[in-house]
Amino acid sequence: MSSCHLSMESRTSMASSPGALPYYVAFSQLLGLMVVAMTGAWLGLYRGGIAWEGTLQFNVHPLCMVIGLVFLQGDALLVYRVFRNEAKRTTKVLHGLLHVFAFIIALVGLVAVFDYHRKKGYADLYSLHSWCGMLVFVLCFVQWLVGFSFFLFPGASFSLRNRYRPQHVFFGATIFLLSVGTALLGLKEELLFTLGSKYSTFEPEGVLANVLGLLLVSFGVVVLYILTRAEWKRPPQAEEQALSMDFKTLTEGDSPSSQ
Amino acid sequence: MSSCHLSMESRTSMASSPGALPYYVAFSQLLGLMVVAMTGAWLGLYRGGIAWEGTLQFNVHPLCMVIGLVFLQGDALLVYRVFRNEAKRTTKVLHGLLHVFAFIIALVGLVAVFDYHRKKGYADLYSLHSWCGMLVFVLCFVQWLVGFSFFLFPGASFSLRNRYRPQHVFFGATIFLLSVGTALLGLKEELLFTLGSKYSTFEPEGVLANVLGLLLVSFGVVVLYILTRAEWKRPPQAEEQALSMDFKTLTEGDSPSSQ
Repeated sequence: MSSCHLSMESRTSMASSPGALPYYVAFSQLLGLMVVAMTGAWLGLYRGGIAWEGTLQFNVHPLCMVIGLVFLQGDALLVYRVFRNEAKRTTKVLHGLLHVFAFIIALVGLVAVFDYHRKKGYADLYSLHSWCGMLVFVLCFVQWLVGFSFFLFPGASFSLRNRYRPQHVFFGATIFLLSVGTALLGLKEELLFTLGSKYSTFEPEGVLANVLGLLLVSFGVVVLYILTRAEWKRPPQAEEQALSMDFKTLTEGDSPSSQ
Repeated sequence: MSSCHLSMESRTSMASSPGALPYYVAFSQLLGLMVVAMTGAWLGLYRGGIAWEGTLQFNVHPLCMVIGLVFLQGDALLVYRVFRNEAKRTTKVLHGLLHVFAFIIALVGLVAVFDYHRKKGYADLYSLHSWCGMLVFVLCFVQWLVGFSFFLFPGASFSLRNRYRPQHVFFGATIFLLSVGTALLGLKEELLFTLGSKYSTFEPEGVLANVLGLLLVSFGVVVLYILTRAEWKRPPQAEEQALSMDFKTLTEGDSPSSQ
């Protein structure tokens, strides 16, 4: 979580030598894809599938939220670890773009549920799930705008970026975890609405949804683990170099002159 | 999250100079006490209060879990920041003891709900809340046992401790966050069971419970923020010193001889 790269070179942690990073990333992707596939399977097998019309419009909501705010948002955070030796600017643009995709997909999911509520005459924004969801949505948007203006355009001064970076990392991870938590609340809500008392008889749908819930938790934990390992952060040299390049690019254009 | 103390001395983060730590800790305690008070208010005002008999026995469960696994567990993690300049061993014992208290209170809450289910003839362990809760409970116990045997008795070697420490810190924070998430799932479950369709009409109980949910999230976020600020970690000197003292104590008894 903290952005300290300079120490820990001497301390190597259990099962976390830099060589293990690809395996952890592969495991996170496996979990993320299982989450998306199982959400699709749940909606397809037990909730009648997906459409933009009728009652099936609701089902667009969980699928879009899981793809956008859980899977893609998680992967956007992992970009700095997966491409830890690539140019910082490329990584940064990829990070920003993945968040844009995540946000657009989540927006479709949000429109789907509001439209469904409107057609059915249901009340909006009364549940804890909806309150947490709106909070995640607003925080995502603010975080993206502030991140974009500090790190990409127009870009803040070198020292201001260094001061803001740990906050950006902390709130990015927090928003991601809050997204996972909100997904769990939504899953639980839908199960209690549709299964009701049948939930307690270990119906296949209930068990599948519980497993989906545990997979969501596991994806969140593995992403957080990869993010917080000190040895897997970007090497300081590459980062310092790239940062000063960014600074030059933004203040002096693309001229290769040294400061 | 990562235990790197040696860097970051030069980089100071926005709004996180060491002088601000007491204010953040005070804020976290205010949030934690509000969470406990509001849980009590919810159970007292809308759920008929607390007793070990009849239907009121269920209400022991949320109150104990919030006090034990959320408030006390959160405070056990903060001990290393609040007493960052005290002797490491004292802090360590306090950390372990707070976890013991948290665990005992949570155990009472667990017995309450199983006993209530048994008397009412309800099924056990079918919901996502219960699956997450059992996971938290088992992880807490394992984490405490491993932590105790590595850091207190019999104690592992200096290098083994250094390798295990980041894992202990990561899983400690993860178990705490999972506790907060499980509390949210339980709150949601109880609201849907007892309020049902009245939840969507903005009944006072529903609004109070949603605010309680947001307070739980806020407590989790503030504790995590305090834990992950690099500048608020224990100063390296104090720690190294205390660690080598522990090491001496365990290997050579209390003799003040140097190695």
